[in-house]
Amino acid sequence: MSAPLRVGVAGLGTIGGGTVRLLRENADLIAARCGRPVTVVAVAERDKDHAASVDFGDAELLDDGLALAERPDIDVVVELIGGHGGIALELARRALGGEKHFVTANKAMIAHHGQELALAAEKSGVTLAFEAAVAGGIPILKAIRESLAGNRIRRVYGIFNGTCNYILTAMRDSGRPFADILAEAQALGYAEADPTFDVDGVDAAHKTAILAALAFGQRVDLDAVRTAGIRDLAPVDQVVAAELGYCVKLLGVAEDTGAGVVTRVEPCLVAADSPIARVDGVFNAVVVDADFVDRTVYQGRGAGAEPTASAVVGDLIDIARGGGWHAFGVPAGRLEQAKPAETALLSSAYYLRFAPNDPRGAIAGIAAALNEAGVPVANMFSDRAPGSVIVTTGTAQGAAVEQACASVAGSMALAGTPVRMRIEEF
Amino acid sequence: MSAPLRVGVAGLGTIGGGTVRLLRENADLIAARCGRPVTVVAVAERDKDHAASVDFGDAELLDDGLALAERPDIDVVVELIGGHGGIALELARRALGGEKHFVTANKAMIAHHGQELALAAEKSGVTLAFEAAVAGGIPILKAIRESLAGNRIRRVYGIFNGTCNYILTAMRDSGRPFADILAEAQALGYAEADPTFDVDGVDAAHKTAILAALAFGQRVDLDAVRTAGIRDLAPVDQVVAAELGYCVKLLGVAEDTGAGVVTRVEPCLVAADSPIARVDGVFNAVVVDADFVDRTVYQGRGAGAEPTASAVVGDLIDIARGGGWHAFGVPAGRLEQAKPAETALLSSAYYLRFAPNDPRGAIAGIAAALNEAGVPVANMFSDRAPGSVIVTTGTAQGAAVEQACASVAGSMALAGTPVRMRIEEF
Repeated sequence: MSAPLRVGVAGLGTIGGGTVRLLRENADLIAARCGRPVTVVAVAERDKDHAASVDFGDAELLDDGLALAERPDIDVVVELIGGHGGIALELARRALGGEKHFVTANKAMIAHHGQELALAAEKSGVTLAFEAAVAGGIPILKAIRESLAGNRIRRVYGIFNGTCNYILTAMRDSGRPFADILAEAQALGYAEADPTFDVDGVDAAHKTAILAALAFGQRVDLDAVRTAGIRDLAPVDQVVAAELGYCVKLLGVAEDTGAGVVTRVEPCLVAADSPIARVDGVFNAVVVDADFVDRTVYQGRGAGAEPTASAVVGDLIDIARGGGWHAFGVPAGRLEQAKPAETALLSSAYYLRFAPNDPRGAIAGIAAALNEAGVPVANMFSDRAPGSVIVTTGTAQGAAVEQACASVAGSMALAGTPVRMRIEEF
Repeated sequence: MSAPLRVGVAGLGTIGGGTVRLLRENADLIAARCGRPVTVVAVAERDKDHAASVDFGDAELLDDGLALAERPDIDVVVELIGGHGGIALELARRALGGEKHFVTANKAMIAHHGQELALAAEKSGVTLAFEAAVAGGIPILKAIRESLAGNRIRRVYGIFNGTCNYILTAMRDSGRPFADILAEAQALGYAEADPTFDVDGVDAAHKTAILAALAFGQRVDLDAVRTAGIRDLAPVDQVVAAELGYCVKLLGVAEDTGAGVVTRVEPCLVAADSPIARVDGVFNAVVVDADFVDRTVYQGRGAGAEPTASAVVGDLIDIARGGGWHAFGVPAGRLEQAKPAETALLSSAYYLRFAPNDPRGAIAGIAAALNEAGVPVANMFSDRAPGSVIVTTGTAQGAAVEQACASVAGSMALAGTPVRMRIEEF
């Protein structure tokens, strides 16, 4: 058996604790599969309670994560601190600069700095790995980077945020409003005290930007991701969606339109019989449409200590076996500048919900505004929820629908911004 | 850009033709992703019509596949001839012995000779790869071998045979009998002229044996797979299954029971709301239950020229990028002798169908036989199909159910063998 792969883990929170536990519990099996042990030689954690809750064996406990980058007895730094800058980024720069492999679950950092870090890894001849950053335990990055590498990918999409999916599923099943379910999710630990990253779509946007880079060979471009969250949704949206044969899901979508890549995160209606409509609660799902393999679908737990640890350790095992892949599938210097296409130019059917004072009285005005903008109306409902007019449209450009909504808002008093969701046909 | 990876393709049938086409159509993209071209330098095909139907560019056309193993200008032999012995096996032996990498979609050959070929590859320091042998375009072997390698796997199961799944789906949706649907599937090209391998579960058994070897670090043991097919099933089985909230699927299952590994292929009832119940027609699905990642599910096209070519080319790209993995995840010499556990000792609920002359008159005798064997009865139906008594049981050992069925068959005249399916709870 060869020399051990010597690992330093920065951050002993949920994922760090899970990772250390996995490496200890399955140490024999991992050593057999790698032909060498994968050994944690040092851990870094400032929070004494976190540190005390984790059995890290003989590993040395450090206060300062940055110290891991300097130690000659460490081959790989595992960063599980979080945050797109700060210590996490400094640790990444120092570790990669110091010719240590670097494994992270930090989607924000990769979405903001993936290009820089991939270049640094290549310059040092080490491996940068972040399978855990997207869809938790689902091995989607490797699938795209390696298994599907013979294919031209048309579209990658899916449910990348378990918190939103939990809230949308619970709204549908219980009929209770967003704020109640969010409070419950926070109490259960499914949502953070500050839920912004999750419910406003930011977390899903990080993942979508990373997937787009891998799928289309482009630099990570977080700014290009058109992002909308789920705060404005109500149980009635799920009820009407279900009547029409759909289900509301927060999707991340990266799609090569031929005229550029569209990346977007937004709540959408997906057909109730599609594979992702049935992915409920904290589960994630990713769908890849590609030219030869056609459609492949991947499902599993998108978060949590143990599934995420599985992904982190998968990367460590790949490094122990030899490593050396390019983080984004091709040398980072060859990634193309993203050519974002404007989502407003995409056409689809739409679901719209307006909240006028007098729904029945408002129908004619809404119909006229849609007609004027060239948006065909399929159905209008004024009786599905108090104070609501719900419209489903035929196929129309996003820009036309946006204009129609603005025109309605300018012509009558509305409570809140109109809800606008694409009805997806994939 | 480095030197090309030089490929020889043996067999220009459906998959061989698809593979050559993929390598040509996406050549630029593949070269960019590998850092070197993947070039077909020779093809071998005895059937002149097959050969004429494929555009293999400048590649040399040979009559004799075995010649590929001798050529110094070939780095990788791709075997797409089929058959578990014969030329395919001879080519594998010669190619690996001659220090050429070897890629195949041949599940039968790997199920019969995987251990020998993996040893030969390791001896020569080359890579043996067969992602295309299991579940077509779904990258399940790499997921188990690499992505999930930190996990102790409890169970791998799924729908591995698209022909059976097509037939079962069509029986359910049309209510037409097995023989009609099979004939239709043959006319559509979804089933072979000799359907034995598919409908008797042999093909799914090959795949189950390969998955068990990878998941549990054991030598491929095809003989241990308890195999039953779908010939005896009738539309009424799907009808009653649906009434009870289930769906009939031909499953391959490999499960570590603690006392050994059970491998089996058999039609089963699976809950209608489980992910695999909804995988219809020619699609495949694989579910992996493991200790840290929990459940992950993989779906896609399990056969066909293009999805299978995607898997073959995925292996070629991995080889072009460096290769060097162990075919079964660990050195073949370290694979343990399989310790098969007896499926008859597994307990589950069962679905049974008997065909007595007088169904109502037979109920008491069937109930008595089940009672005597210690098999609890949940439901009995004599009115669901002419000449049928259908029974669902509580949890019982397979051996007890088998004994009860034999006892019924000994005590009354039955048309055909009783139908016996597990009601799975996973």
